[in-house]
Amino acid sequence: MGFLSDRSVFAQNAIEMEDPTAEELVKEGKKVVHLNRGDPTYYIPTPRYEIDAYIKALKDKKTYYSRAQGIIELTNAISKRYKLMYDLDFTEDKVLVTQGVSEALSIINSALINNDDKGILFSPYYPPYLPYLRLNGGSAIIEQYDEKNDWNIHIENLKKSLLYFKKENKIERIKYLLITNPNNPTGTVLKESILEEIVEIANEYNIMLISDEIYDEIIFNNAKFTSLSKLAKGIPHIILNGMSKSYNATGFRIGYIIIPEEDKKSNELRKTLYNYTTVRVSSNTPAEYAAAEAIGNIREHKKAIKSMVKTISERVNYTYKLLKRNKYLSIAEPKGAYYLFPRIDLDTLGFKSDIEFVDKLLKEKGIQVVWGSAFGAPNHIRIVALAPKPILKYAVEKINEFCDEHGG
Amino acid sequence: MGFLSDRSVFAQNAIEMEDPTAEELVKEGKKVVHLNRGDPTYYIPTPRYEIDAYIKALKDKKTYYSRAQGIIELTNAISKRYKLMYDLDFTEDKVLVTQGVSEALSIINSALINNDDKGILFSPYYPPYLPYLRLNGGSAIIEQYDEKNDWNIHIENLKKSLLYFKKENKIERIKYLLITNPNNPTGTVLKESILEEIVEIANEYNIMLISDEIYDEIIFNNAKFTSLSKLAKGIPHIILNGMSKSYNATGFRIGYIIIPEEDKKSNELRKTLYNYTTVRVSSNTPAEYAAAEAIGNIREHKKAIKSMVKTISERVNYTYKLLKRNKYLSIAEPKGAYYLFPRIDLDTLGFKSDIEFVDKLLKEKGIQVVWGSAFGAPNHIRIVALAPKPILKYAVEKINEFCDEHGG
Repeated sequence: MGFLSDRSVFAQNAIEMEDPTAEELVKEGKKVVHLNRGDPTYYIPTPRYEIDAYIKALKDKKTYYSRAQGIIELTNAISKRYKLMYDLDFTEDKVLVTQGVSEALSIINSALINNDDKGILFSPYYPPYLPYLRLNGGSAIIEQYDEKNDWNIHIENLKKSLLYFKKENKIERIKYLLITNPNNPTGTVLKESILEEIVEIANEYNIMLISDEIYDEIIFNNAKFTSLSKLAKGIPHIILNGMSKSYNATGFRIGYIIIPEEDKKSNELRKTLYNYTTVRVSSNTPAEYAAAEAIGNIREHKKAIKSMVKTISERVNYTYKLLKRNKYLSIAEPKGAYYLFPRIDLDTLGFKSDIEFVDKLLKEKGIQVVWGSAFGAPNHIRIVALAPKPILKYAVEKINEFCDEHGG
Repeated sequence: MGFLSDRSVFAQNAIEMEDPTAEELVKEGKKVVHLNRGDPTYYIPTPRYEIDAYIKALKDKKTYYSRAQGIIELTNAISKRYKLMYDLDFTEDKVLVTQGVSEALSIINSALINNDDKGILFSPYYPPYLPYLRLNGGSAIIEQYDEKNDWNIHIENLKKSLLYFKKENKIERIKYLLITNPNNPTGTVLKESILEEIVEIANEYNIMLISDEIYDEIIFNNAKFTSLSKLAKGIPHIILNGMSKSYNATGFRIGYIIIPEEDKKSNELRKTLYNYTTVRVSSNTPAEYAAAEAIGNIREHKKAIKSMVKTISERVNYTYKLLKRNKYLSIAEPKGAYYLFPRIDLDTLGFKSDIEFVDKLLKEKGIQVVWGSAFGAPNHIRIVALAPKPILKYAVEKINEFCDEHGG
């Protein structure tokens, strides 16, 4: 028996695993371009009106503990946002404010997962979904997004998988089905028809749906986003969202959980998650006031999000075009978020794995990307297309050069 | 098999359990005086220089994700604080910044506790220690602080208890021994001689020591505080601290873990806890910059803490004196923090429990305190002595009146 807990090995964020190598190179005086961290705020400042509201809260001395489930100004603003954007009606008490979606995932998994319980994820997935499941004794059933079909969900495969668990009498061990829409790392926006089928399946098998919609306003190239909540009326589901992406405030660490329905499962879970929020007392109070204004001031937000999506989509599309020239990569047109997730022809390039590709790319060309294996999708890499165009141009040229050298 | 996890019942913060009753009374238009939440910042504003640093970080656009283990300006400031205050030498990489001590407790328990592992707590204890243990499958060995000896630790009892676990071959299941110094809810400052014995015992039985020192500068009535780290050189231990109390910034949600030693256990745990911080990406970035200035600006902090401790000690001593007049209560002189934890003569007053006492006090007199059972010490109540004197006077008069009425 070791000193550390058995579960502690699962505390890993694969996105950050190449960081020590990159740091080492920087220390040696080498140039490293980081295209690995999905942080829009690093490149595009948080909108001024959000910062002003944050400063006002500080000047107003709002630095005490706040209400455990979030200040009422913020839960109200969130309720109004969903009315305005998605025509949904739920009261503010259906919302729980968390310290980022990370804390939301942590307490949801703690509240739902017994040893050997399962959650359904779709690969490629956001890496921290896995540790939060595993740290609570659970494991993932990993379905595949269909790369050949613009990374949408392959409904027939999902049905087959659930039928198998039903036959094995294990369907009750499946505590939730989690989708990310728009998706990190593929930039996919799920089709409404597919969401409808997902809802139907969840209803049939009595599985709680979770939709992580943190990128819900970062949509472009004529994509149409539908919030799961619009389609899941009357069945238990959870919406995850927050300030990091659409409100461009990653460092605020403000996320939220919405459990809009009032069935027995939804009520029990919401009450229990509320209890979890009381254990850690409160979120960052002035950040909550900033978030309330960020969400509540529709006029300012509309201006800010329009400008941000314009900048981001230009950068993503620009990178997409440059990468398309590389004959060793194949890549779907992105529709949301700010990631590109090309498949790499590792065989022709002579690499054993995406991990080797990423490691050599960093060491030979000073470009840091994330290996696809981190998202459950080997043979791919994730590129964050948020840097200004000259940096993106430089980086992609280096990637293309690297591929030519190894493929040629 | 239920929908929620078995462990989820442990997500409770007993401090907040009377809140719904209090809210109901307020809604009915009744006056309620809250002496239940240990939030200094609600009564005494966060020092201006801390707020200014926070605002500066916001104006400087520091709202992106920060380094997972905390910005280097803050970890450096913490390292220097311990050199200056306690003459301790450890480098900044021994520090991990967390979202309050709550997150620190959450990840430490997750990293250490396997099913059926144990942590030693001393009663009365800060209530959330228990859920963090239990949510990870652990349970508490609850030793008693010695009320007759100013709530210090009864070393002989602790030794007996450990001997028992050793004989039963269960000593390895004890993952840590956690003390709170100064203590919440008793206001006790542990004697150096007792700390020395604790260190010796932990060394003999090879148990990780954890010292929660969040109130380390809120000391008065000639008490002398010693940081565990000063005495535990060469043996594995963890110091918990943060911005909430000595820096009077509860709503910042910035805490920290120090694991100063470099033995195998300390190194393994620190590395693992670092991994946990990467999973949730970062703490609130501008709050970290504010914390770096709060801790780093020694001159301003000295002024602020002197003034705060003066105010707090006056209020605590004032409340102490007023409560001493009540013949149904017995109470130790507080030495730190801002709590009073009187024992109540429930039998004479005719109450079945401290819970009934607290509930009736709230309903009959509109005074909200916390029942001692929440801290593992029935027959007591916790009073937070942070409000301005006229409020404290009103509240204690109501408490005394309530006791006189029931005591006949």
